[in-house]
Amino acid sequence: MDIAVIGLGLIGGSLARTIKLHTDHRVLGADTDPETLAQARRMDAIDGELNDEKLRGCQVVLVALYPGDIVTWTRDHARFFAADALVIDCGGVKQAVMDRVTPFAKGQPWHFIGGHPMAGREFSGFRYARDDLFDNASMILTPLPEEELSVLQRARDFFMDLGFRRVQFTTPRIHDEMIAYTSQLAHIVSSAYVKSALADRHKGYSAGSFADMTRVARLNEGMWTELFMDNRDALLRELEGLIDRLGAYRDALAKEDSEALKTLLREGREVKESLEEV
Amino acid sequence: MDIAVIGLGLIGGSLARTIKLHTDHRVLGADTDPETLAQARRMDAIDGELNDEKLRGCQVVLVALYPGDIVTWTRDHARFFAADALVIDCGGVKQAVMDRVTPFAKGQPWHFIGGHPMAGREFSGFRYARDDLFDNASMILTPLPEEELSVLQRARDFFMDLGFRRVQFTTPRIHDEMIAYTSQLAHIVSSAYVKSALADRHKGYSAGSFADMTRVARLNEGMWTELFMDNRDALLRELEGLIDRLGAYRDALAKEDSEALKTLLREGREVKESLEEV
Repeated sequence: MDIAVIGLGLIGGSLARTIKLHTDHRVLGADTDPETLAQARRMDAIDGELNDEKLRGCQVVLVALYPGDIVTWTRDHARFFAADALVIDCGGVKQAVMDRVTPFAKGQPWHFIGGHPMAGREFSGFRYARDDLFDNASMILTPLPEEELSVLQRARDFFMDLGFRRVQFTTPRIHDEMIAYTSQLAHIVSSAYVKSALADRHKGYSAGSFADMTRVARLNEGMWTELFMDNRDALLRELEGLIDRLGAYRDALAKEDSEALKTLLREGREVKESLEEV
Repeated sequence: MDIAVIGLGLIGGSLARTIKLHTDHRVLGADTDPETLAQARRMDAIDGELNDEKLRGCQVVLVALYPGDIVTWTRDHARFFAADALVIDCGGVKQAVMDRVTPFAKGQPWHFIGGHPMAGREFSGFRYARDDLFDNASMILTPLPEEELSVLQRARDFFMDLGFRRVQFTTPRIHDEMIAYTSQLAHIVSSAYVKSALADRHKGYSAGSFADMTRVARLNEGMWTELFMDNRDALLRELEGLIDRLGAYRDALAKEDSEALKTLLREGREVKESLEEV
């Protein structure tokens, strides 16, 4: 079948390459940057350029843009979607997207499903796109509440065929709440962590934990600011929670209370050990 | 030559295995746990068990214990050290060790050098020891100020032969200040990070950044409490600095100030991009 990929950045580009690697689908790409389109074509990440007419023939439409652009693009192209097409976005927040898309997507013959592939890199753009980025990753889907089961099954099968380990169905609210903690907060911590006055002298004095802690400080601040602002309440709650918890360690240190500090560390270890992976 | 390794935990065990892999030295091990000693022997991580008499023949003595035990062990065994032996500890703090060892080590025919191999894993004990743990890592050494250059060269050559990428000479104070930031703070952040009420639901909603951020929450709280308390001032300063910096992101979010947030994120990205690796 024909698949449209809108936006050939890190995520869209990786989806295109992954589809080409794992399936016989034809991938039609769209990007505002002609050079990116040309490069995607040269690398066989896409089979051709998308246009409105070709969009009518696509059974799956993947919208890999920033949240605001997802809404705009989807609204502007809704009249070209095939009946029964799956239109799935890849934005990092879901409530802000679903709230604005639902009014015009509801009741249509095509099916809008919110999506968020749980994988990324600390680099942006098509040149960093990989065909194994989603191997063993989780694909989160937030369908409209009344969506047909057969549509959900089609969506799940599509992503499982690409090498995802699991497809997680949930609500936009739960998605945003979880992502505020598991991903957005990590980016803020990493960004704040790297700013110590000692950072530029780390060479020779650091190892894995410093590298891990600061990896995602290398972020696209335009995109992340939009994501953070679209999920402000949940993120603020998690950030305040973390600052409070760090305060407990600070207090134990300040009071030279070894027992309290040891208990705090033991509790953290126990939580970590209790977690299932991915 | 003969090398003594005191304490066959993750670090001592890995040093023993690394020496066996890269050199023809004979490794004599000591550990309070007979089962660990037996296992190290079975795995050829050591050639035999250390005793006071054999210690007299060791040209290098590596003390891989907790900071307090490093001091006690070194003092209790000083009379058995060979003239010109290099006695190097592997504790994660240096001022607290050097302050207590210097009084009885100074002026002796053997040479005490503070040491800290910059590598680790989030697991403890000999069974996690690896012969590649130190590949490309930095070995930090804090010698007495009056140490002879030829002794420092011997120490550097010894570690470079094991596969370390570099040997970094510094003072205990600078070591402790840097490590408070690059390593100790990371362990506190990781421990605090993992304690959100949402943590046990992360499965399906998380990817690399959550895994990286929480990896070292799996720590040995007894050892780390001792390390933190021995480096309390520097760690407290870094922890307070981080809490302050996180507060700036919180304020920008709370005020819905996208420009301020974007600036904070951009500054973090620029610092990260400016850092040299390892």
